[in-house]
Amino acid sequence: MRTLVTGGAGFVGSHLCERLLAEGHEVICIDSLITGRRENVAHLESQRQFTFILHDVTEPFFVAGPLDAVLHFASPASPKDYLEHPIHTLKVGGLGTYHTLGLAKAKGAVFMLASTSEVYGDPEVNPQPETYWGHVNPVGPRSVYDEAKRYAEAMTIAYHRAHGVPVRFPRIFNTYGPRMRLNDGRALPNMMSQALREEPVTVYGDGSQTRSFCYVSDLVEGIYRLLLNSAAGLLIVNLGNPEEVTLAQMAREILEVTGSRSEIVFQPLPEDDPRKRCPDITRAKQILGWQPQISRLEGLNKTLPYFREALGEKESGDRRQESEKETMNDER
Amino acid sequence: MRTLVTGGAGFVGSHLCERLLAEGHEVICIDSLITGRRENVAHLESQRQFTFILHDVTEPFFVAGPLDAVLHFASPASPKDYLEHPIHTLKVGGLGTYHTLGLAKAKGAVFMLASTSEVYGDPEVNPQPETYWGHVNPVGPRSVYDEAKRYAEAMTIAYHRAHGVPVRFPRIFNTYGPRMRLNDGRALPNMMSQALREEPVTVYGDGSQTRSFCYVSDLVEGIYRLLLNSAAGLLIVNLGNPEEVTLAQMAREILEVTGSRSEIVFQPLPEDDPRKRCPDITRAKQILGWQPQISRLEGLNKTLPYFREALGEKESGDRRQESEKETMNDER
Repeated sequence: MRTLVTGGAGFVGSHLCERLLAEGHEVICIDSLITGRRENVAHLESQRQFTFILHDVTEPFFVAGPLDAVLHFASPASPKDYLEHPIHTLKVGGLGTYHTLGLAKAKGAVFMLASTSEVYGDPEVNPQPETYWGHVNPVGPRSVYDEAKRYAEAMTIAYHRAHGVPVRFPRIFNTYGPRMRLNDGRALPNMMSQALREEPVTVYGDGSQTRSFCYVSDLVEGIYRLLLNSAAGLLIVNLGNPEEVTLAQMAREILEVTGSRSEIVFQPLPEDDPRKRCPDITRAKQILGWQPQISRLEGLNKTLPYFREALGEKESGDRRQESEKETMNDER
Repeated sequence: MRTLVTGGAGFVGSHLCERLLAEGHEVICIDSLITGRRENVAHLESQRQFTFILHDVTEPFFVAGPLDAVLHFASPASPKDYLEHPIHTLKVGGLGTYHTLGLAKAKGAVFMLASTSEVYGDPEVNPQPETYWGHVNPVGPRSVYDEAKRYAEAMTIAYHRAHGVPVRFPRIFNTYGPRMRLNDGRALPNMMSQALREEPVTVYGDGSQTRSFCYVSDLVEGIYRLLLNSAAGLLIVNLGNPEEVTLAQMAREILEVTGSRSEIVFQPLPEDDPRKRCPDITRAKQILGWQPQISRLEGLNKTLPYFREALGEKESGDRRQESEKETMNDER
């Protein structure tokens, strides 16, 4: 199979490229590197079956040759990232989805949209099944991402209904693992970094809001099964770990795993922050025979070496900058 | 003032162009004529202050000279129309909004988005205030319009927040009056046409679902006041008539106004048809000093001559086609 992955140098995208290569796909990875990082796919670039194209899919593009699948995973995905790039986030969900759907249609390829639990907004039912319509503020600060993804879903469905493009979309819940950016603003890398630096660990609100964290290899397994599923022309499936944890409990677990002696501090909750978010994965179990295999303790332990290394690199980088500054000061 | 109106040859757009001209604006009307009609603005084309440009705003465009306001009113707007043009409806809310916002930003113009009560979906509170987040099915048949408008709102707000573009958007509830297309599929022109033809008048569902109908001159008054309001950089205001009526009652009133002896027949309800839709216009009253002036009886009577004439033209057109067919048959 010849498969295109937009956002292939992002956190989830790069793990997906890796898996597709391992399964024998030829992989074309497109990324603008706005929030993706070339290092995430550096280890793949020597493989003949892998091609990296630096391109922003909000601009029209075309890829020569046949394609069996188009996987649209490009988008800033953490609140910090999409609030830094609000218009670009809207564009990649709108224009980017339009361009990649057009390509899938032209190539007769299967189209997969990386959708998100954010389409459920601040949900009024818990856990959320795929049939839940969501509770999203169209004009709130998070709408640049939430509404872009809802629009992307609507357009994906429209291409399926009007042009018969076979489409699948996972609605991806919180995911973690190696290659998350330390500074992407999410709770887990924040807390991990703070704990490893022995700084106070920040919990927003009173910490009673819940999340469910899925380890990245579990997610990729679900995505891969969804991609290969030939059952129907349209599949919408929640992928996430249904085990809920409060953010306060998560902070305690991170202190334990890292062996940190940091204290936990509480800060005010950002606007429209969801109180609860937990996938109902009944459909994924039934259709894909999928459920997460990696426990939180196991996943945190698997992620820890990455964070230690990334933090070490960052800090030695910071120290290098500091010493360069000092050198410059000396020279003046 | 020099004002651009996209969708200016549509039902609401053409009334708006008329009003702006009457208030001394220079008006540039852009329309793709996909659902708009050149006849709607034919009576304005002799005015020097009016320019018609045939263009589809889903394609990039630029307008020479200064602009004080950009009013983005282009979109298929009835369920029948947007289900006939699903991808185009998504594009005009996405790409069209992006292009017109870019123009407003470049010109330093005020931007107005014609938003809609459809952003509230099938609401769970009644009447709906502007603060209500809505209840929309992102993957239902109506999502091509609802999600496109929610996306358009999110992008409009993002341009305001990121670039300081002054933005206003009316959320427009059901509106009626001259220049509605007979075949746009909405309840009112459907019922009117059926009543005038002495055909059975169709009510979908059991007729207990409610709507609120605003006469077009009332709506345009509200839009004009909103446009001129200089109070703030961002204004979101419901515009509609808060007087609710069941569709069954509406059917009876139409029979009365038209003097028709048609019977009322009931048909199954389409998917995701909203049960209720009624604006809370507290904000419009406070900020704009606006409320509808035209009663339903008065509005129906004002609209009747248009429907009689349009129906007469259509029928004589149909008869002409029939007799042409007969002539052709004779000639064979």
